[in-house]
Amino acid sequence: MAITIKDIAEKVGVSVTTVSRVLNNRGYLSDSLKTRVHQAMEELNYQPNELARSLSRSKSNVIGLIIPDISHPFFAELTKHIEYYAYKKGYKLMLCNSLLDKDKEREYIDLLRASQVDGIIMGSHTMSVNDYMSIKLPLITIDRKISSTIPCISSDNYRGGEMATQLLFQKKCKKIAYLSGNLRLNMLAKQRYDAFVDLVTLEKVEHVIKQTNLNGFNYKEYEELVAELFSEHPDIDGVFASSDMLALQVIRECRRRGKKVPGQVKVVGYDGILISEMDELTTIRQPIKEMGKLSVQYLADLIEGQNPPLDTILPVQLVERSTT
Amino acid sequence: MAITIKDIAEKVGVSVTTVSRVLNNRGYLSDSLKTRVHQAMEELNYQPNELARSLSRSKSNVIGLIIPDISHPFFAELTKHIEYYAYKKGYKLMLCNSLLDKDKEREYIDLLRASQVDGIIMGSHTMSVNDYMSIKLPLITIDRKISSTIPCISSDNYRGGEMATQLLFQKKCKKIAYLSGNLRLNMLAKQRYDAFVDLVTLEKVEHVIKQTNLNGFNYKEYEELVAELFSEHPDIDGVFASSDMLALQVIRECRRRGKKVPGQVKVVGYDGILISEMDELTTIRQPIKEMGKLSVQYLADLIEGQNPPLDTILPVQLVERSTT
Repeated sequence: MAITIKDIAEKVGVSVTTVSRVLNNRGYLSDSLKTRVHQAMEELNYQPNELARSLSRSKSNVIGLIIPDISHPFFAELTKHIEYYAYKKGYKLMLCNSLLDKDKEREYIDLLRASQVDGIIMGSHTMSVNDYMSIKLPLITIDRKISSTIPCISSDNYRGGEMATQLLFQKKCKKIAYLSGNLRLNMLAKQRYDAFVDLVTLEKVEHVIKQTNLNGFNYKEYEELVAELFSEHPDIDGVFASSDMLALQVIRECRRRGKKVPGQVKVVGYDGILISEMDELTTIRQPIKEMGKLSVQYLADLIEGQNPPLDTILPVQLVERSTT
Repeated sequence: MAITIKDIAEKVGVSVTTVSRVLNNRGYLSDSLKTRVHQAMEELNYQPNELARSLSRSKSNVIGLIIPDISHPFFAELTKHIEYYAYKKGYKLMLCNSLLDKDKEREYIDLLRASQVDGIIMGSHTMSVNDYMSIKLPLITIDRKISSTIPCISSDNYRGGEMATQLLFQKKCKKIAYLSGNLRLNMLAKQRYDAFVDLVTLEKVEHVIKQTNLNGFNYKEYEELVAELFSEHPDIDGVFASSDMLALQVIRECRRRGKKVPGQVKVVGYDGILISEMDELTTIRQPIKEMGKLSVQYLADLIEGQNPPLDTILPVQLVERSTT
């Protein structure tokens, strides 16, 4: 029977993880530990898997993270969790802020490849599917399904859209607005919009749809979008905003116009960022921490030659607070 | 007279910066450009400075950024600008979130050194001065002066503290609270507190000082701190919060207690993060973009063997909005 690292671990009296760390030269390892592990390997005549060895030889222990904008709280929180779990697994994190610029995104991928990162987590999605397919590095995407071969992590956007819309129905809203960033971006977040449209159509509820023109995040743009909504439709009594930052802008605009929230206008956000709690916003909470954790774990699996799930859709949660 | 890169640039018909990029192998360079520069160097018998050459040989074009918590909006915005300018200068950014854990901070410095980063920007400050002095890599600190030899970038914290306190005086506040994170951390931000204490003592204004016990950022902790303040001192009519996030918590608590802002309580924040604008918060705005830009520029100078200024104190600005 072939000798495995479990046998080595038993002989040395350490965990399998520790032996694996020695083999991959990852994390902090004392010289004495390394010597003991290598001696045990020799004594047991351990033959490491060639693929694993070639992978370990070329490992930089760096992963690249490409996101649209670190100053947006959703991405800041996601990055915090990704950094935390990457560090725990012995990876360093290279941060790439694409600012939703297609050229910068592509240039960053070239740069990351040249720096021999072990893999990439993509949370920014302006490139074409072909561009993605040509990356040829372990790759995990967040919130965008590129192809049947690239693992994707997301939360249940359609269900989140349903929950938000249904809550506004329950609260007897008669004219509901859906607010979002650019819907043309082919992201899974668009499913929130799909769920909204399906439900208001089915229930024949009057509705308005507003989106920003920009690809990026711009608070001034949000402000104008929301002001425009209430000028054109002063009778809106429910708003489903596709991000908490947009929802906070709605609440601010209501305050400015003397409209009571939730008395006259009910507002539901999306994301569940920390600030939504501070501002007692009703929202659909994405499992941001879990998304960060799994994206690191599955990327590490890919790097080590394993096959993580191709589709991971995490549940979302309705958090009712004081704005509905 | 010695041949300089200016001569090479003139001969090739490109800028000095371009020649410097070729010498340092930085950024995107076409093969034809590289050939032309190297030919000109040979023809003019250019002898690059040995120090510069040895520096350029070992360059990884990666800089490390160590901050306490990327999910705090101030650091998220600062990081966005640092990433932007680093990218422009051909550097990639390795993000290290210390979570204000001294061991993680020190371990990260070892990791960064092992990864042969070209330099480090430190925005997290839990280590001792000796730990810093032993880094032996180009180093820029933000908001903490470590020694007379390590360049530091900050904004004028004392002046900011004065401006906030004086505004509350002008608004006729009779009992003013100063709220902050842990004052024991030896950061320049403590000067905001010093300015506050100097002025309330001079003007004999009644005051209260409250700080969180934790080193980290925790919104729940902020919430409790603010609730405690108003329970113990219901007659507070002015608050100077040392961050916008804390100030927003004060406004929320006032809303909950039915206290009008600015009618009954005036609130000044600090930082000037994007959300302060959304929430129409009066604040002291730090030049976050400029701080990010200069930290990258001065680190690049250090890496290239130049001597950037040791002390850079940028001006702050009072932004009066609707909470005072």
